Amino acid sequence: MARGPASAASGAPAAGEKRRRPGRRPGAADTRGEILAAARRVFAEKGFDKATIRGIAREAGVDPALVHHYFDTKDGIFVQAMQLPMDPAVALPAVLAGPREEVGERLVRFILTLTSDPQAREPVMALMRTAMAHEQAEVMIREFVTRAVLGRVAEALKIPPIRLEVAFAQMFGVIMMRYILKLEPLASASIDELVALLAPTIQRYVDG
Amino acid sequence: MARGPASAASGAPAAGEKRRRPGRRPGAADTRGEILAAARRVFAEKGFDKATIRGIAREAGVDPALVHHYFDTKDGIFVQAMQLPMDPAVALPAVLAGPREEVGERLVRFILTLTSDPQAREPVMALMRTAMAHEQAEVMIREFVTRAVLGRVAEALKIPPIRLEVAFAQMFGVIMMRYILKLEPLASASIDELVALLAPTIQRYVDG
Repeated sequence: MARGPASAASGAPAAGEKRRRPGRRPGAADTRGEILAAARRVFAEKGFDKATIRGIAREAGVDPALVHHYFDTKDGIFVQAMQLPMDPAVALPAVLAGPREEVGERLVRFILTLTSDPQAREPVMALMRTAMAHEQAEVMIREFVTRAVLGRVAEALKIPPIRLEVAFAQMFGVIMMRYILKLEPLASASIDELVALLAPTIQRYVDG
Repeated sequence: MARGPASAASGAPAAGEKRRRPGRRPGAADTRGEILAAARRVFAEKGFDKATIRGIAREAGVDPALVHHYFDTKDGIFVQAMQLPMDPAVALPAVLAGPREEVGERLVRFILTLTSDPQAREPVMALMRTAMAHEQAEVMIREFVTRAVLGRVAEALKIPPIRLEVAFAQMFGVIMMRYILKLEPLASASIDELVALLAPTIQRYVDG
């Protein structure tokens, strides 16, 4: 499934397009866009935990089956609605697989590589800016981070949530200092250099 | 010297006050307030590094000696202008003194204790929000953090700046997750519990 800003256009008429109303086609671009807009309203109002596919369908005025047709899961809708660069449910299992004594390094490298792409990074930054500025959005983001990201890793690795939260805080802080405050030499450091510094920290939180 | 929001009033007529124009008194409250307002404009425009006491005095339309009379240093003006809870130049030496093998714990406890007070925390959060939202403010904040906070610690402890930056990122991330996203159980954890988790991380960055 296509992701991010580009994906919103992927169901639209191709180049050399003839504009036509998509009346008979439930798969048309603006239906999908309307579902995502409805999802953003529902997530903002109810938070991530209390939002349901049924509630999003109702808000969009479509059948729940159509929402399921476009988006497999609530996680998937949230990821698309916020234009996040990846669905944790899809990406995390691969990162968490492999030797446990190297999971710190794999997590650090995954996060640094993902965020080194400005197109992947920007929606994540936008979400964090929103969390800082709006109490309402903060609930939705906290619940998504807790359920879809940290909860998943804590369960897979059997680590106490608080250890995962300070590990997440370490990586979040590094991304902020590297790309928002742009502290030097951190902002210019290579991924390898940062992995060498940070992987032992994350591994220690995992090992407990 | 008084600090924070309350301090702006400290030069004002005392309780039971008779309002009078402060014409002959260069120490009057609104002169001080005008200097701080001028300082905010100068810092925002020029950043922390290029701002000078002379430039702030010129912007405020007062003699540089008067700026020196109110504020000993450029760090001090910045701290007052941004209503920060403490001047790093004053607070850090005490935190950094003592056995080097315990400096991780002292730094973690200092930061967690300081930020546990909402009145101390809020201006710091406001500054970080500003840094995230405004490119211009970001320069001023980066330079202050680099020069007045991290540079001072790196010099005192003789650690490579990048190690201090990831340590700072760890603590910044924890404060964000504890007080902005309010991840549980991190948000409700005691300072002692967090010191036990985080002090070894910071100590490892210090030890190199």
